[in-house]
Amino acid sequence: MAGATGKFTEGVVLSDDQNSVLIMDQTQLPNRSQFIHLYEAGQMFDAIKNLKVRGAPAIGICAAYCLYILAKKTGAKDYASFCAEIKQHKDYLNSSRPTAVNLSWALGRMEKIALEGCGKPIQEIVQLMGNEAKKIHEEDITFCRAISEHGLSLIKNGAGILTHCNAGPLATSRYGTALGPLFLGKERGMVFKVFAGETRPLLQGARLTSYELYKAGIDVTLICDNMASIVMKNGWIQACFVGADRIAANGDTANKIGTSGIAILAKHYGIPFYVFAPTSTIDMDCANGSNIKIELRDPAEIREKFYAEPMAIKEIPCYNPAFDVTDNNLISGIVTEKGISRPSYTESLKLLFGE
Amino acid sequence: MAGATGKFTEGVVLSDDQNSVLIMDQTQLPNRSQFIHLYEAGQMFDAIKNLKVRGAPAIGICAAYCLYILAKKTGAKDYASFCAEIKQHKDYLNSSRPTAVNLSWALGRMEKIALEGCGKPIQEIVQLMGNEAKKIHEEDITFCRAISEHGLSLIKNGAGILTHCNAGPLATSRYGTALGPLFLGKERGMVFKVFAGETRPLLQGARLTSYELYKAGIDVTLICDNMASIVMKNGWIQACFVGADRIAANGDTANKIGTSGIAILAKHYGIPFYVFAPTSTIDMDCANGSNIKIELRDPAEIREKFYAEPMAIKEIPCYNPAFDVTDNNLISGIVTEKGISRPSYTESLKLLFGE
Repeated sequence: MAGATGKFTEGVVLSDDQNSVLIMDQTQLPNRSQFIHLYEAGQMFDAIKNLKVRGAPAIGICAAYCLYILAKKTGAKDYASFCAEIKQHKDYLNSSRPTAVNLSWALGRMEKIALEGCGKPIQEIVQLMGNEAKKIHEEDITFCRAISEHGLSLIKNGAGILTHCNAGPLATSRYGTALGPLFLGKERGMVFKVFAGETRPLLQGARLTSYELYKAGIDVTLICDNMASIVMKNGWIQACFVGADRIAANGDTANKIGTSGIAILAKHYGIPFYVFAPTSTIDMDCANGSNIKIELRDPAEIREKFYAEPMAIKEIPCYNPAFDVTDNNLISGIVTEKGISRPSYTESLKLLFGE
Repeated sequence: MAGATGKFTEGVVLSDDQNSVLIMDQTQLPNRSQFIHLYEAGQMFDAIKNLKVRGAPAIGICAAYCLYILAKKTGAKDYASFCAEIKQHKDYLNSSRPTAVNLSWALGRMEKIALEGCGKPIQEIVQLMGNEAKKIHEEDITFCRAISEHGLSLIKNGAGILTHCNAGPLATSRYGTALGPLFLGKERGMVFKVFAGETRPLLQGARLTSYELYKAGIDVTLICDNMASIVMKNGWIQACFVGADRIAANGDTANKIGTSGIAILAKHYGIPFYVFAPTSTIDMDCANGSNIKIELRDPAEIREKFYAEPMAIKEIPCYNPAFDVTDNNLISGIVTEKGISRPSYTESLKLLFGE
C-alpha cells in the first residue's frame, strides 16, 4: 500500500481492490500518516489541487490511475460516449494544476489508449487503460532508479548537498529523482551531509524532505530558504540537486518557487547545480521558460496557512507564485533516466528524444 | 508613548515617570499592540534576547535607556561600587545578542559617562547618563531623517523596491533607515511599489514591515523570501533597500539572514543594492565580515515557532543563523546620516569618521 512499499514510502498506489487510488495525504505529514482513497473525480481534483498528492512524477502516476478508476465506472453505452466521457474527465483533472507537465502527459497517454481502442469492447479498453496506468507507474520506478544511478556519479562520498522542495519517494516512486542518489548512495554505505530548504510557503522541505531523509538515516539539516547563501559561503555545499515540474526544449526549468534563486547563488559560489527529472518532464513543444505558465496560489498560504495565528494582516496583498523558471545557463546538467544532459540543452535534450 | 508618537510607531521610549523603558512587544505584532515596561535587568535582557525589541538602532536606544534606569536604582554608596555595578549591568545586557554593534556601542557611550564622572555625586552622574540616553535617542531621530533624505535621492517616483526584514520605525525611531525614504517619499506625494520579504524564521517582514508600510498607505506586497528572484526577473524591482546590524571597515555588512542572497540576486539581475544604517552601525575596529560573530538561534524557531503544529519532526537538526554577511563587492552604496558612501568602502567609510 501507499506509504509502506518495502523501505520506501510512496505517495500513490492503486488500491488492492483496484476501485480507488490510494494516496498518503502529504499535507498531513510529518505529524500524521493519513491515507485517502480517491473514488470520484471531485476528490481527485481536490487531492492534486490542494497538494495532498504532489511532485511532478507522482501527480502523473496519480492522474493516470485516476483516469483508469473513472473509466472503470463508466456508464457509457457506446464508444463515442465513452471517449467523450474520458475527454471530459481528462480536461477536468488537467485543470487542477497548470505547471507540472507530467499531469497532461500522463492524462494524454491514458486518453490515447481510449482513442486507439475504436472497435474494441469498452471493458477491454478499460483493461488496457489499467495496464497503461500501471506501466506509467512501473516506468517511473525504473526511471527513478536510473536517475539515481546517474546522479550518484556526480558526487563523492562525504559531499554536502543542498536540495529544495521535495523530489523524493513521496513525490515520485521508490528512490525519487533529486533525492534518489542520496538514498542509493546510502544503501552503498556512502555518507552525505544534506541541507534541505524548508520551502515556503507550504514547507515541503521541512515536512517531507527532511522527514524522508531522516527516516532513511541520512544526515539532514533543515534550513530556512534564505539560508542557502550562508551554507554555500560556509563551504558546506558541493552540489545542488533539485527536481523539475516542466523543462523547456532549451533546458529552462520550472520548479518549486525559489529554485532559480538557488541556481543564481550556486553560480555565484561556483557550485554545480543539477536538475533531476524523467524525460516525461521535458516538454519539447515548449521552446523556452517564458512559455511556461506559472501557477499563482492563494495568498493565505503566505499570510496564515499552518500558523497558529495570522502572521500578516489580511489587508496585505501577497504574491504567491508556486514555481519559478531557472534559466538554462544556470544549470550544470539535467539528469534523466537516459543519462546526464549538458549544455547546450537545445541540442542535448533533442538527442534524448532521438530527434 | 511607544507606538503612538504622532504618525510614527516607535519601538522604544522612556516611560513618562522615567522609571522604566517602555517598548512595544514586537513579537506580538501584527495581532496585538502590547506594551511592556522594563524595570529590571532580567526583563531587559529577555526583551532584547527574545526580539521583543529588535532592529539595531532600536536595540541601541533601548540598551541606553535600560542602563540609565538601572543606574537610577543604584544602591551603591561610593563611586567605585557604582562603576562596578554599571559595568556588570553593561556586560550582562551586552551578552543578550552578539551581532548588532549598536548594542555595545550604546552601552559603551553610557558607561563612558559613568567613567568620566569621577569626583561628581552619583546622583549627578545618573542625571548625565539620562541625558546621554536621550541624546542617543534624539540623534537617531535626526540621523534617520537624514538617512531617509539621502536614500530618497536614489529612487524615482513609481520605483519598485525590495526590502528584507524590518528597518522601519519599530526598528529605529521615526522614519527608520531602509524604509525611511519610502515614508519620506510618501509624505511628498511619491508612490512606490514595495515588495517585503517575509523574513523567515521570525517573519519580521510579514509581521512588521508589511504592517508599517500598509498602515502608512504605501503599496506593499508580501512575498516569501524565496520569491526574491522571480520578482526581480519580472522586472518589478529597481532597487533593494536593507538595514544593517554591523558594517565592517571594508563595507562587508552583517544583516538579517538572507540579505547576502538578495545582494547576489540583485547583482545577477543588474539591480542596485543599498545598505542603510547610522554611522553607529559601522565598526571600524572590525576589518572585514569574517570577523563578525553570527548569532545562532534556537532550532525551534524553524521547526515549530509560530505554528499551530510542528512543521518538522523534533529529531531534525536545524541550522539557524540570525544574520549573514554581505560582501562589500555586492553593495552599490552604504547610506548613513552623513550621505551615500560608494566603493571602495575601505576608503569611503574612513572619510565618515574623519580618518
